[in-house]
Amino acid sequence: MSRVTCDMAMSLDGFVAGPNQSLDNPFGEGENGRLTRWMVDEPELHKAEIEAITAAGAFIMGRNMFGPGRGAWDLEWSGWWGEEPPYHAPVFVLTHHEREPLPMKGGTTFTFVTGGPEEALRLAREAAGDRDVAIAGGGMTVNQYLAAGLIDELRLHVAPVLLGRGERLFDGLADIDLEPLGEPSRTALVTHLTYRPVR
Amino acid sequence: MSRVTCDMAMSLDGFVAGPNQSLDNPFGEGENGRLTRWMVDEPELHKAEIEAITAAGAFIMGRNMFGPGRGAWDLEWSGWWGEEPPYHAPVFVLTHHEREPLPMKGGTTFTFVTGGPEEALRLAREAAGDRDVAIAGGGMTVNQYLAAGLIDELRLHVAPVLLGRGERLFDGLADIDLEPLGEPSRTALVTHLTYRPVR
Repeated sequence: MSRVTCDMAMSLDGFVAGPNQSLDNPFGEGENGRLTRWMVDEPELHKAEIEAITAAGAFIMGRNMFGPGRGAWDLEWSGWWGEEPPYHAPVFVLTHHEREPLPMKGGTTFTFVTGGPEEALRLAREAAGDRDVAIAGGGMTVNQYLAAGLIDELRLHVAPVLLGRGERLFDGLADIDLEPLGEPSRTALVTHLTYRPVR
Repeated sequence: MSRVTCDMAMSLDGFVAGPNQSLDNPFGEGENGRLTRWMVDEPELHKAEIEAITAAGAFIMGRNMFGPGRGAWDLEWSGWWGEEPPYHAPVFVLTHHEREPLPMKGGTTFTFVTGGPEEALRLAREAAGDRDVAIAGGGMTVNQYLAAGLIDELRLHVAPVLLGRGERLFDGLADIDLEPLGEPSRTALVTHLTYRPVR
């Protein structure tokens, strides 16, 4: 049976983005690429982890991850990722505004879901078949799926930086424990930690 | 030259204690032993880490770690640790109230310092000689020493639990980065991560 996975880059003080995310600052003020430097500067050292991020058979993302401000329902906007997004699979975007599906090059199609997280998960499971479904982000969307007990494998990529303010991954989730899975690994720029959330 | 070390048990969401710490709840409400379960349930698996916590030549702690409420200047109070505390070395307690030094069995002496964190560090370095000085806690005291750039080695023991509220280790410290030291290790109850804080 397919699992629901989630990869998140997080600071050591628990933030997944700085405050005031915008077109210029998709990860918020003060982040400045610090959470994902390992992917940019050390791609060979993290080949397996980077490939795993886009290995799922279907993806779910919040509208803030798809685009800033009116992104999800602005017909001019087709995501951050250019003509050929790295997903190569169906991507379900949570939004309150209806929009026709948006097919991109390379197999990615953005489908806009107004029925809520569980409806998005149902559609994504159907699209993924035996493959995993990945909750792609952002922080609020992952928080929502964690709160609902719907994530099977949470892969945290903890950058050795402190953001001090912004969006916290775990806000309001005190009743969840996390079973460690596998072994942690670390370089100077990141520590990879995998957990199974348990309510 | 002796280093300044610090061992802290922390939840995955960044808390080192729950709210409302008291005589009945030294780690605050909702903690219920969850941050330090690894020390109680798996002592043999973490022998090196547990021994390292009390290996320093001198210790510094805040008055809330020494005792609840009026602890540090209540002459009836001699700490949480019984007649023979596990430090076996000089312990400098930060407080605003003067009190005579308190010798305990086994080589621990509590000395009460009213001159602030840097004065306590000066005294502890002098007492430790070539051995390390450990900042023993609690969270506010460690936060203060991190803010002042005075900790050389921060050993985090991250429990796979979420507390949701309480005392955060890194509040207000966004301008610090952390260089990873050594390899992480993990069991079901804790992940050990060591960092060198860099301002």
